[in-house]
Amino acid sequence: MHNLDTLGQTALTACQELALLPTQTKNQALRAMALALRERKQDLLSANTLDLETGREMGLTESLLDRLKLNPHRVEAMATGLEEIARLPDPVGTVVRGWRHDNGIEIRQVRVPLGLIGVIYEARPNVTADAIGLCLKSGNGVMLKGGKEAEHSNQAISQLLQQAAYAQGIPTGCIQQVPGTDRAIVEQLITLRHLALVIPRGGAGLIKFVTENSTVPVLETGVGNCHIYIAASADPDQAQKIVLNAKVQRPSVCNACEKVLIHQSAVAQLPALVQVLQQSGVQVRGCERTVALVPSVIPATAADWDTEYLDLILAIKIVDSTPVAIDWINRYGTQHSEAILTGSYGEAQLFTQRVDAACVYVNASTRFTDGFEFGFGAEIGISTQKLHARGPVGLPELTTTKYILQGNGQIRP
Amino acid sequence: MHNLDTLGQTALTACQELALLPTQTKNQALRAMALALRERKQDLLSANTLDLETGREMGLTESLLDRLKLNPHRVEAMATGLEEIARLPDPVGTVVRGWRHDNGIEIRQVRVPLGLIGVIYEARPNVTADAIGLCLKSGNGVMLKGGKEAEHSNQAISQLLQQAAYAQGIPTGCIQQVPGTDRAIVEQLITLRHLALVIPRGGAGLIKFVTENSTVPVLETGVGNCHIYIAASADPDQAQKIVLNAKVQRPSVCNACEKVLIHQSAVAQLPALVQVLQQSGVQVRGCERTVALVPSVIPATAADWDTEYLDLILAIKIVDSTPVAIDWINRYGTQHSEAILTGSYGEAQLFTQRVDAACVYVNASTRFTDGFEFGFGAEIGISTQKLHARGPVGLPELTTTKYILQGNGQIRP
Repeated sequence: MHNLDTLGQTALTACQELALLPTQTKNQALRAMALALRERKQDLLSANTLDLETGREMGLTESLLDRLKLNPHRVEAMATGLEEIARLPDPVGTVVRGWRHDNGIEIRQVRVPLGLIGVIYEARPNVTADAIGLCLKSGNGVMLKGGKEAEHSNQAISQLLQQAAYAQGIPTGCIQQVPGTDRAIVEQLITLRHLALVIPRGGAGLIKFVTENSTVPVLETGVGNCHIYIAASADPDQAQKIVLNAKVQRPSVCNACEKVLIHQSAVAQLPALVQVLQQSGVQVRGCERTVALVPSVIPATAADWDTEYLDLILAIKIVDSTPVAIDWINRYGTQHSEAILTGSYGEAQLFTQRVDAACVYVNASTRFTDGFEFGFGAEIGISTQKLHARGPVGLPELTTTKYILQGNGQIRP
Repeated sequence: MHNLDTLGQTALTACQELALLPTQTKNQALRAMALALRERKQDLLSANTLDLETGREMGLTESLLDRLKLNPHRVEAMATGLEEIARLPDPVGTVVRGWRHDNGIEIRQVRVPLGLIGVIYEARPNVTADAIGLCLKSGNGVMLKGGKEAEHSNQAISQLLQQAAYAQGIPTGCIQQVPGTDRAIVEQLITLRHLALVIPRGGAGLIKFVTENSTVPVLETGVGNCHIYIAASADPDQAQKIVLNAKVQRPSVCNACEKVLIHQSAVAQLPALVQVLQQSGVQVRGCERTVALVPSVIPATAADWDTEYLDLILAIKIVDSTPVAIDWINRYGTQHSEAILTGSYGEAQLFTQRVDAACVYVNASTRFTDGFEFGFGAEIGISTQKLHARGPVGLPELTTTKYILQGNGQIRP
């Protein structure tokens, strides 16, 4: 087993220099990295073929194999992603605020990098490029640990990007792809003293393991058991359009709708809603009352209510009142994205005030919880925790601040 | 042993209502609480006498007994502290930023309370009132666990403040003084699922125990092994004045200076500096070179360099260069407050860029790292971590944010 301590020390020393690099050096490196991806696309596809073959032998599902797969289009997307990061404003050096103390000391609060960030992720090899790009632009070193099924692809992408970055003046050692494929290496990483932060990107199992075992601060991202509550006064056509969009437009993502709550006096629209969902390939599950009303609905089990399907499945529950819907969401939701569809001003206000989540919607699809949709550009995930960052995590959230106090002899009276 | 789960659930339910209270209700409560402290001062002093008697029997040091002691002046300070918190702006409801999506969705990021906060503290009973006041004003519930030596005083203050708060419309149960005096109850508290955050206020031992064992996010406050580096070009008179102020003005606090680093070409001023410190009652320790130069200095041991004395002790080390001083500070410092005294523009820039700490000073005493000095008003401590909050932790840092998205039927294309 590798000893991550040496890698961690190397990365930490290197990223102390990275923290001070001018923006233009980082942007040049990002553009050179994009170019390298394009020029050596074939090497990446070959490495990916090895992973796909191993994956098929190991009996991975088609959906997992699809996530794992690289093709020219996906490599190009990684390259343009890095170029987009180069175009984003650099948060490092931003003066958040500043003022002068009565005694003349000039105080300013300045954004600085966090230091060394650990990123633990599964399946999709494009995360390797995204995470390296975002950490580099925000002046942070990064230690990456991808899933074992994508080992060859991740190593190939990482090697390529490291070479391109270091050739442009990024301090050697800032980017570390952690070798090894066992869980023990993950355990080492999440207790590594050099890390300022660890970000798990993946399923609920990975996130739970990291939050429970890490001694490094964790930025929890991604689990979204998102609800849409159809209130009594919701417009049925709009409700159908929004629920359909939030469920089927891209079912595998964390801001997709997983549950519909519907007020008991709005249930007349249920048969049509269920039909439209089923016609779009959605398996619809429901509470007893829903099943009684629409017999084609499959009875939901207790486990359904806190499951994030990430698939063409949706569960419906009929509720007696808006407060009941709010309590249900605060109990079973994952504080990601929650929506109310209503024509009532009072209900909209009640819902947005009382639902405890990163993003609370009125009369819109939950699918807008996204760095690009928010205008932040590329993001490293959606934070569902309350501390440090909540919602889409962009470049500023990958920094901290430092107060600089410039005096000329001041002492405290 | 008490089961904190029930207390936690009660507090969590109550603080969901507190989160929505208008500012004026919270301010009225804070002023009523101040009044109650004044009116029932005698009850508090009686409870405190019990703690002092037990403390003397248990052989507590005079300095600990002094921290434990309440007198009319200290009770009045608690009362005015609550009134000051009432005058601070309420962070809850502040719109941090807001904009409109291309598709017309109105997005705004709004400050909301964190939820339920755990505060674990030692000795000083005034922390009970400060912590309750700050949590209440920021819309958070609070579960307090004070040190066993102040058990009677803390319970008396807390009971009094709870009665006064609840009588003014603060939801009953928002404030919980955790009973019991053993470490097992602390262990329960720092793993309680209802808490959004735990704040340890006390010595390095308490903070280490909490950060290592908590499953709740921790806001680390307070350990300050602060350095002042006297560069070659520092003005000797100013250096003497600043070091003396940072060490002796109030030696028991976290922003007091604990170590002086001095450039080898500035050592001519050492004998006078040592003399002035010793005349002010400071025990001066030093590296071998310092002792060789000023024989009255006591040789420092390896343990000195990472010790926060919180006392009239200071250790001096002679260094060969500014980069060596910076590396030393980044290695032995606690990322609290670090200062350079210099006449050189380049050295000042190098130091402020490369020293990794919450507050980095040029030519001023480290004693200004403080919520009041920063103009933030009352603070719950100085954060020495990088995530969520760094530096003085005031009311805004006790909140999180929520995005509210108001649409009229938008779906994602």
